[in-house]
Amino acid sequence: MVDLRVVLLEPIYCGNIGSISRVLKNFGFDDLFLVNPCDIGEEAYIMASHANDILDAANIVDTLDEAVFGSSLIIGTTSKPGSTTDEHIRMPFFSPKELKNKIDEKEGIVSVLFGREDVGLSNNILKICDMVVYIPANPKYPVMNISHAVSVLLYELSDIETGIIPIAKTEDKERLFSHLEQFLLNIDYPPHKRDKTLLMVRRILGRSELTGREVQTLHGILSRAELSIDRNK
Amino acid sequence: MVDLRVVLLEPIYCGNIGSISRVLKNFGFDDLFLVNPCDIGEEAYIMASHANDILDAANIVDTLDEAVFGSSLIIGTTSKPGSTTDEHIRMPFFSPKELKNKIDEKEGIVSVLFGREDVGLSNNILKICDMVVYIPANPKYPVMNISHAVSVLLYELSDIETGIIPIAKTEDKERLFSHLEQFLLNIDYPPHKRDKTLLMVRRILGRSELTGREVQTLHGILSRAELSIDRNK
Repeated sequence: MVDLRVVLLEPIYCGNIGSISRVLKNFGFDDLFLVNPCDIGEEAYIMASHANDILDAANIVDTLDEAVFGSSLIIGTTSKPGSTTDEHIRMPFFSPKELKNKIDEKEGIVSVLFGREDVGLSNNILKICDMVVYIPANPKYPVMNISHAVSVLLYELSDIETGIIPIAKTEDKERLFSHLEQFLLNIDYPPHKRDKTLLMVRRILGRSELTGREVQTLHGILSRAELSIDRNK
Repeated sequence: MVDLRVVLLEPIYCGNIGSISRVLKNFGFDDLFLVNPCDIGEEAYIMASHANDILDAANIVDTLDEAVFGSSLIIGTTSKPGSTTDEHIRMPFFSPKELKNKIDEKEGIVSVLFGREDVGLSNNILKICDMVVYIPANPKYPVMNISHAVSVLLYELSDIETGIIPIAKTEDKERLFSHLEQFLLNIDYPPHKRDKTLLMVRRILGRSELTGREVQTLHGILSRAELSIDRNK
């Protein structure tokens, strides 16, 4: 797994520095470099919320060279990919997903650069980047707030596992369907409709990806219903 | 493709309403409902930047029922998925990617609810949701800024195409490799190393996914070198 470094070049709003510190912490990162930033005032700490540790540990340097020192890959970001492939400088552009696929299972420091809020990264800086990433957005208004762009990038590049949903085992689901088949017999469901209805219920429950607990609950409903039927016979 | 609606329940900071308007526009959406929001002041317009049209068109309503009227699916959001599957209310949780897969190629209005900045969605509201989504985040600090959470969700649910990178055709690349083979002969590259070196260059250029234009440029470099060699013979 790569070590991700976020590098902000000359950010001019300290609230954004705080906001971005929070995003780093939300996605489990902590390596933040600020090249020649604005003063870091109270607004930065308000926006950092519970990530003031990341904000306090940010490395403040004077030059981009210092910020990317030791990196194996330098990634530029832009909200305005050129429409032509003839510009040597900046092509080709990758989406965050494509970048994720490229750096997956690699090692080393990957520095992702974000330019100033109002002007972004200059062509001279994009030239020294190994790759340039952009977030696919509305062509009529592709320019995102910088902390939103960082959110999307770090979300995509984070290796935090999605929660594991314990889907019910096939054999447990099959027992439920057998139970249901028996139930249809019990309630004198019209025999010529039985197979089609069972199949439909299978499809419905298949799509809903039942958990083990949910299968048990559905069994319970059928059992309760059977008890009521038996009592009234 | 579904019609996505963003519903904010009782937002208390108008800057966030503006920020979220901008995110909608960045990802090509425009259906925003505000249930019983705070006053929408100047800060909202500053944060909306060039998305004041989305902000002005936001539907302000008194109840959640009005906001989700006509929806086919109601999606809750939370930053704190329970750790157990035994809570009937809220399980199972889906990641944004899983939600995207579920609603892909469906039709109808899908309303995504975001709770108040400080308390999120109540259990009573999560109960009426068809699905609950959470963004996989650092367990030590999973609570994201609301506009960052909206950014990640809308990024994932947007159908905006990533840019098309015109990878060079195989036959063009093969011509380049033939050229290179010829070039190695011209420069008296050690014969016993020739095949391995050619293979290595193939691998290197394979990984870099050359565009057609880049293939042409590499041809050009070889041709130029050949000219120089011929001149000095």
